Amino acid sequence: MAEPTSRTDVAALGEFGLIEHLTKNTTRYQASTIKGVGDDAAVIDNKGLLTVVSTDLLIEGIHFDLMYTPLKHLGYKAVVVNLSDIYAMNALPRQITVSVALSNRFSVEALEELYAGIQAACDHYKVDLVGGDTSSSAKGLLISVTAIGQAEPGKLVYRNTARVGDLVCITGDLGAAYLGLQILEREKQLFLSDPSIQPDLENQSYLIGRQLKPEARRDMIEAFARQRLLPTAMIDISDGVASDLMHICKQSGVGAYLEESGVPIHLEAQQMAIKFGLDPITVALSGGEDYELLFTIDPKDVDKVKYIPDIYIAGEIVPAQDGLKLHTKGGNIHPITAQGWRHFG
Amino acid sequence: MAEPTSRTDVAALGEFGLIEHLTKNTTRYQASTIKGVGDDAAVIDNKGLLTVVSTDLLIEGIHFDLMYTPLKHLGYKAVVVNLSDIYAMNALPRQITVSVALSNRFSVEALEELYAGIQAACDHYKVDLVGGDTSSSAKGLLISVTAIGQAEPGKLVYRNTARVGDLVCITGDLGAAYLGLQILEREKQLFLSDPSIQPDLENQSYLIGRQLKPEARRDMIEAFARQRLLPTAMIDISDGVASDLMHICKQSGVGAYLEESGVPIHLEAQQMAIKFGLDPITVALSGGEDYELLFTIDPKDVDKVKYIPDIYIAGEIVPAQDGLKLHTKGGNIHPITAQGWRHFG
Repeated sequence: MAEPTSRTDVAALGEFGLIEHLTKNTTRYQASTIKGVGDDAAVIDNKGLLTVVSTDLLIEGIHFDLMYTPLKHLGYKAVVVNLSDIYAMNALPRQITVSVALSNRFSVEALEELYAGIQAACDHYKVDLVGGDTSSSAKGLLISVTAIGQAEPGKLVYRNTARVGDLVCITGDLGAAYLGLQILEREKQLFLSDPSIQPDLENQSYLIGRQLKPEARRDMIEAFARQRLLPTAMIDISDGVASDLMHICKQSGVGAYLEESGVPIHLEAQQMAIKFGLDPITVALSGGEDYELLFTIDPKDVDKVKYIPDIYIAGEIVPAQDGLKLHTKGGNIHPITAQGWRHFG
Repeated sequence: MAEPTSRTDVAALGEFGLIEHLTKNTTRYQASTIKGVGDDAAVIDNKGLLTVVSTDLLIEGIHFDLMYTPLKHLGYKAVVVNLSDIYAMNALPRQITVSVALSNRFSVEALEELYAGIQAACDHYKVDLVGGDTSSSAKGLLISVTAIGQAEPGKLVYRNTARVGDLVCITGDLGAAYLGLQILEREKQLFLSDPSIQPDLENQSYLIGRQLKPEARRDMIEAFARQRLLPTAMIDISDGVASDLMHICKQSGVGAYLEESGVPIHLEAQQMAIKFGLDPITVALSGGEDYELLFTIDPKDVDKVKYIPDIYIAGEIVPAQDGLKLHTKGGNIHPITAQGWRHFG
């Protein structure tokens, strides 16, 4: 479904020709990029700044389904999820490397689509593609992205530095990407059972867009700098806020509670969750792929947060022995369990 | 064959448990490593040095065959081939990230073997494992390694800076890794045709060792520093010297010739090439996976090279219109053709 119509075999270009072909329109945005694609390694000038590195491996059939994921969107998302990790350190991404492996069912035109998405993300976030590797695979498409960022010493925000009494903050809204995925999966199953059925994606562009074309919260990192706000701890919400808050708590040696009324859920996500017979708060806590930021602040900084739109104060850090809890709207207290990673088992 | 006997399902640990389990014995060698595994990203302090980044993706069935590759060797080699790229910039590797994806046929014990090899390489080259990602795959094992190095400004050596009149130098010897692979492939085919046949690997430990456990030439980069030698251009020999010399020539806008008598070939490689009915010089030029260094020097530096053992002066850089040629021992001149990458087509 996602393959463009014209088809050039990858073998027609060969490895070196392919890399040249795919990276020839690469733009250089960062003064720190001394050498990009084309040598044994890329070269970055740091001028005393700290370097921040994050990496992710995306695998067809595990992390994405090409039946409903356009290759251009996939390239864009593969970059964004890595940049999100760099922003979650309160750092700014500067360069990426991208390695791709693909079976011979993919044409050069298909790869061009993928790289068009990668380049679109580079353009939007002003990062430079500085290296990578292209290979064949026995089966399916694999994408490995490494993002490199910079930060001034003292400006980085880690996961293990939340303190009892800090406020827990969440950007944006949660659960929408998960519900977008459920819609796409439902339509895929209907299509597979009867190819004459037209997909029913109307009026769900918000949820589907959150799944297929997420954005990283660069705007928040920029807003923190303007407000001179340094969160006490931060993580990006990739596995679901339940799991990601658990990381902060475990590494910081603390507990936390979330107020159900403080967890931001988009109206369309609420309605769709109910349509799927799911509890909206469960979807918001455990859905994942939100790529929002979860961070904690010193209570004295609460006024700074108020000046930044799209941030919600959702809870508080408590002693470790109090555990990880949800205070429901009905006045009940439930333990929050992190399911972690859904890719095994 | 390569799987250890005890077996723990990866699902028993889960993602977070698995990463913790595999990286808990990680040693920190580099003062520049501020933050390693366990946050959104690793943090590196550069103090004004340049950062050098290289990445590789290794795929079962394409880049390695687990039937004759022990997982520990595989982990070691996956790191070494990346470090080789950093050394080829005349830089020193400091940190690596490793992402692994595996199908459910691999146990936790198998992964431990792989990480033992990764850790052995970290120990030998004094690099820090600072991040990564672990995932499942639909089929087979995938390893993506990114290496990060440092160099003083002005000390880096690129591919595009060879000049007419420079001498072409090669470290070590060539072709042995390719022949080691041919032996392993031959024994695999014999084993598949009749499992009662015992592998005949005796007396070939040099060739097989060059294939299964290559080393990167850190010693050469250290020797260059001691001799105050700055090559004019450099690349590591991964695709075969024919292909890699072509990269230097193309990017530098020059040609080159190699003297057959100057191309170093180990005696065992010569004998084994003939046994396989192959021309030793062809194997040396096109075999690949040598992970030796190919570099060019100003002729005024020739005395510095003489003080470093295991370096061979194999040819000279000439104008681009003279092309890429081999001067044979018999006095003939042949064009050198680079076959490039064998993984497609």
